[in-house]
Amino acid sequence: MRIVITGGSGFLGSRLARAILERGRLTNAQGQSVQVTELVLFDVVLPAVTGPKVRAVTGDLGDADTVARVVTPDTDSIFHLAAVVSGQAEAEFDVGMRVNLDATRVLLERCRALARPPKVVFTSSLAVFGGKLPDAVADDSPITPQTSYGAQKAMSELMLYDMTRKGFVDGRSLRLPTITVRPGKPNRAASGFASGIIREPLCGVEAICPVRPSAAMWVSSPRAVIDNLLLGHEVAQAAFASAGFGHTRSVNVPGLRVGVGEMVDALRRVSGDAVASLVKWQIDPVIDRIVATWPANFAPVLGPALGMRADSDFDGIIRQHIDDEIVPRRRPMRR
Amino acid sequence: MRIVITGGSGFLGSRLARAILERGRLTNAQGQSVQVTELVLFDVVLPAVTGPKVRAVTGDLGDADTVARVVTPDTDSIFHLAAVVSGQAEAEFDVGMRVNLDATRVLLERCRALARPPKVVFTSSLAVFGGKLPDAVADDSPITPQTSYGAQKAMSELMLYDMTRKGFVDGRSLRLPTITVRPGKPNRAASGFASGIIREPLCGVEAICPVRPSAAMWVSSPRAVIDNLLLGHEVAQAAFASAGFGHTRSVNVPGLRVGVGEMVDALRRVSGDAVASLVKWQIDPVIDRIVATWPANFAPVLGPALGMRADSDFDGIIRQHIDDEIVPRRRPMRR
Repeated sequence: MRIVITGGSGFLGSRLARAILERGRLTNAQGQSVQVTELVLFDVVLPAVTGPKVRAVTGDLGDADTVARVVTPDTDSIFHLAAVVSGQAEAEFDVGMRVNLDATRVLLERCRALARPPKVVFTSSLAVFGGKLPDAVADDSPITPQTSYGAQKAMSELMLYDMTRKGFVDGRSLRLPTITVRPGKPNRAASGFASGIIREPLCGVEAICPVRPSAAMWVSSPRAVIDNLLLGHEVAQAAFASAGFGHTRSVNVPGLRVGVGEMVDALRRVSGDAVASLVKWQIDPVIDRIVATWPANFAPVLGPALGMRADSDFDGIIRQHIDDEIVPRRRPMRR
Repeated sequence: MRIVITGGSGFLGSRLARAILERGRLTNAQGQSVQVTELVLFDVVLPAVTGPKVRAVTGDLGDADTVARVVTPDTDSIFHLAAVVSGQAEAEFDVGMRVNLDATRVLLERCRALARPPKVVFTSSLAVFGGKLPDAVADDSPITPQTSYGAQKAMSELMLYDMTRKGFVDGRSLRLPTITVRPGKPNRAASGFASGIIREPLCGVEAICPVRPSAAMWVSSPRAVIDNLLLGHEVAQAAFASAGFGHTRSVNVPGLRVGVGEMVDALRRVSGDAVASLVKWQIDPVIDRIVATWPANFAPVLGPALGMRADSDFDGIIRQHIDDEIVPRRRPMRR
């Protein structure tokens, strides 16, 4: 089985690659459990994950020739993670359109050209929602994004579903919650602070929180997201219809509703006052506005019906980050 | 005031052009009532409407250079009617994507490049809806199109709204009901029969109805659609927020719910048994499926709040067609 991960050098792509290599086998579009023989990590920079089954390809996802080289006719599955994040997509409209919409189309068109349509797991976002929403967003709540990022993800979902309906690909769009805690440097995602206000203080560094403590978010730990991404891949197409959602391939991935102030309270409980006091509140109106357009509470039905799960509490998410990212760094390098 | 109509040679474009010339003035993006000085009819074929203020341009809407020549910097308003119809978009995916999505993008990008963003009235469709829907579709019902035409219209709406939100254009998407009775030859719209089963019998010609009599549709007469298109143009941007719909520029245009069997009953009432018996039932599974994915009943709030209106009954729609299209042909040519 040949699998491609776009954005394979990113944080999520790396975690997903490790999880796939660990499992060793996945289910192909024909419903058979097959051994993973090649894992292609495609990104603009070289990946962190290496190994005998791993092949790294760097290049532009928007370029059809490059994509044709990456998505060979024997490709079984694609995890399409590559994207321009929300803050950048809002500031640079053209870059967002090119990467978040056009590159997705190039990828889907390449899949369509193959004799055997691959599975495509597309990482969409809760940013497809916005505007007037119910208190708890349902699977079929209206799609009225209030950011360019959300609009581009929503357009890609529509294209993915239509091309799935026509049999060009076997697509699934997973609307991911805000992922926290992400390791590494801050990126230009408007949601970046949700990781920063935990990650930086745990390393003894001050972190600016650009949104109000009363702001709420719908979040997921990296582990839960990886589990749900793999589940979104494994599930049979027919499972959507069985769950009463045959008219869509978009899934509101389960998450945890948490207030930004509560996130800092959890940090205090887990790591003490000194750590939590490193969070400084300094509202950035642009980020505050973008985050305010995202819904913070959902009532997912389809995701749980497919077997997806959420984290149970934010304290656990912080402890997971400490276990996964901080404890290993205190020990000798493992690789 | 300079106005461009794409698809200006089509049935709707011609009716709209005549209505604009008759009114003589429209409201520009600055809210001023201004005299129409130039009306550009842009299409792949020459228009039927001519006159001292009318300029005809033929060319490819998907070509950026052509669009730049048509949408000059002094353009105040664009009515974007040009599209590949539903039946063709379903059969020819690439043609549909190019005309219904890519050409819309070329047009919007051209508007964005201008110093003074024009008003853009985009004709979307009830085909953006589909799948699991409430009995009466609300303005904010979920967008899960089940046809390529609907998906392309929905993607265009998302792009139009996002570019409006960013101030690149002053856009409005009007989701038109099925327009009946259209004159002329049948086209490849899956909804074409809704005109054919009235138009052909009235001329003494047999018409095939490819869907079940129990099928229901959401329809509008040409006159009501033209009135609503002009209203969608005239209304101020602020009216959307005032009506509680500041998060969208998409309007479910009011229509009339009518069963296909009832349409033939109305024809019998208006024109007698001999005419109505020219309708022959012969189900086409493809068209029957496409039409079945479209909702037939709506509970529009935004459209009526903006001042839009629907026809009151189908008998009136038939009489309107007789007055507008059949009676004039019995008299000497007017032009």
